[in-house]
Amino acid sequence: MKKDLKNQQNSTEPKSVGDLSVPAAVIRRLPHYHRYLGELLADGTTRISSLALAGLMGVTASQIRQDLNCFGSFGQQGYGYNVEYLHKKISELLGVDRGYRAVIVGAGNLGRALVSSHMFERRGVTRLAMFDISPDLFGQSFSGVPVYPMEELEEFCSKNRVEIGVLTTPKDAAADVAKRLAAAGVKGIWNFSNMALKSESPDVIIENMHMGDSLLALCYALSSKQDEK
Amino acid sequence: MKKDLKNQQNSTEPKSVGDLSVPAAVIRRLPHYHRYLGELLADGTTRISSLALAGLMGVTASQIRQDLNCFGSFGQQGYGYNVEYLHKKISELLGVDRGYRAVIVGAGNLGRALVSSHMFERRGVTRLAMFDISPDLFGQSFSGVPVYPMEELEEFCSKNRVEIGVLTTPKDAAADVAKRLAAAGVKGIWNFSNMALKSESPDVIIENMHMGDSLLALCYALSSKQDEK
Repeated sequence: MKKDLKNQQNSTEPKSVGDLSVPAAVIRRLPHYHRYLGELLADGTTRISSLALAGLMGVTASQIRQDLNCFGSFGQQGYGYNVEYLHKKISELLGVDRGYRAVIVGAGNLGRALVSSHMFERRGVTRLAMFDISPDLFGQSFSGVPVYPMEELEEFCSKNRVEIGVLTTPKDAAADVAKRLAAAGVKGIWNFSNMALKSESPDVIIENMHMGDSLLALCYALSSKQDEK
Repeated sequence: MKKDLKNQQNSTEPKSVGDLSVPAAVIRRLPHYHRYLGELLADGTTRISSLALAGLMGVTASQIRQDLNCFGSFGQQGYGYNVEYLHKKISELLGVDRGYRAVIVGAGNLGRALVSSHMFERRGVTRLAMFDISPDLFGQSFSGVPVYPMEELEEFCSKNRVEIGVLTTPKDAAADVAKRLAAAGVKGIWNFSNMALKSESPDVIIENMHMGDSLLALCYALSSKQDEK
């Protein structure tokens, strides 16, 4: 009887990306799972219990089980989660296997810092080119990625079917560059410009990166702690 | 009768930081309020209705009212919120008025990008110095902030009562530098190193900045959209 119940629990096939109806909060947490599982994989860990994963991630085991249940049952009782399988599934769900192509607009310090990080390749995103207005930079490359003049942005993006544009321009230029990217067929804009952008088309997704919000969260935590004393 | 009710609604004094018991989700949203209100202030807007603020922030008016109610009633029916007062109150709640002092460890592209942004001063955080291991950089300064050798980190932090350390070192160095900062009395670490750090002391708060999670969220949104078609 007990075995039957167990088999039943495990019989649910992971839902394909197409028929997901996963709470937005869970979706927001998936990148965290992806990151921790990637680190476990790199460490050679093959399986992990919900309790151990919870300890690592600083959340409760029941949250882990609940979250991962949204995608069908990845885990087996008494065995734990298969790290490689779970990482692969979450990668698929997140679109990491789609091989997106990106350009970085702005080849200043932030653009260079981003292009040199492993963030992109780890998530299956290829950095094809950087664009800038400064002629001194044309022909240079950073981490193997060449810098082209802003005038060539649209043609390059259409020709190379670029899906992601990373915006590291000054605040004032951001809205204009976002429009140009969208007109050239770019579907996703990762915006570091400190100017919150709203998408003007339902076809274009904008992910605003507000680093200052994270600094404020830290200030808040510090001041709350001081007030406790 | 109606007026009485209105007066009652408005009689709640904003709670002081000391006796707050605000849901964590609301706290996480405060930096967003702070940012939007700051932009309104800069634009010369003196008051705003919950509906207009909701439209601007892309949330519902009832969420705005609910969130801001946690801090006592900032708004008045038929008048809306006083932008300056609300911005000031949220600044206080977030600790923006505390005048924290920060150092940036790592004077590479990311460190330079951060030090040159207006993020710090807008949030009342002073950038005192950068630290690096590369002798070429000693004596140089970026956006007026000098670079010192890593050997001087502890002495500088203790002497200048530095509260915040911004970590932009390579992954491998992050844990060691975090320990050194904590030993020198630094209470908050803003970690850009792509190595999730956990605080080893209850006195030290770590805010991990995982930019890659934001890239993954964008990839997910893109792939979900593709699958819809």
